[in-house]
Amino acid sequence: MAEKNVTKVMIDGKIITLGGYESEEYLQRVANYVNHKITEMESMTSFRRMSPDMRFCMMAINIADDYFKAKEQADAAEQEMENKDKESYGTKQDLIAAQMEIDRLKRELDKYKK
Amino acid sequence: MAEKNVTKVMIDGKIITLGGYESEEYLQRVANYVNHKITEMESMTSFRRMSPDMRFCMMAINIADDYFKAKEQADAAEQEMENKDKESYGTKQDLIAAQMEIDRLKRELDKYKK
Repeated sequence: MAEKNVTKVMIDGKIITLGGYESEEYLQRVANYVNHKITEMESMTSFRRMSPDMRFCMMAINIADDYFKAKEQADAAEQEMENKDKESYGTKQDLIAAQMEIDRLKRELDKYKK
Repeated sequence: MAEKNVTKVMIDGKIITLGGYESEEYLQRVANYVNHKITEMESMTSFRRMSPDMRFCMMAINIADDYFKAKEQADAAEQEMENKDKESYGTKQDLIAAQMEIDRLKRELDKYKK
């Protein structure tokens, strides 16, 4: 089992202590992304004017939107992979049949050559 | 260009109006996910004891973690697809070579049969 780590990250200027099995490098990447999102959203006047509660909801929706888009991308790639597997299986079957035909033709040819 | 929609969703008991090109169905799914996350985190005493600022950060990190996991899954699936494409290209080339060999053997056989 992986060792549990304690990592400090800075989010929105506040130091957060995170405990878990993720590497420090991973958690810093996640924190960087969140900070980037906060900067992006705070550049909008409408966001800055919101109550803290509303800002919380908008931020959650915004990050969740990225999550859903990535999930859709993953699902689509896995679906495509399944289709490719089927296609590849068909090509492999054709190749086996072609190799059997080559063997048959060679045997026939050998009879004439003898 | 898709029509801009205005959709109301409920997050953490608050009604949020979202404008954008996403379908209402999609935004409701995103909102449901966020609400599920909030319920999940609020079930932890440590989360309930945090200041609103800290809750904001923890929620953002938690959703961002899901995003990174989905992104890794998407990237891995795309990498695997690339490998499968290369493998499939190789099989197709082998099939073409086998078909050419079949043609050659058939022509040779024809000479003996005449």
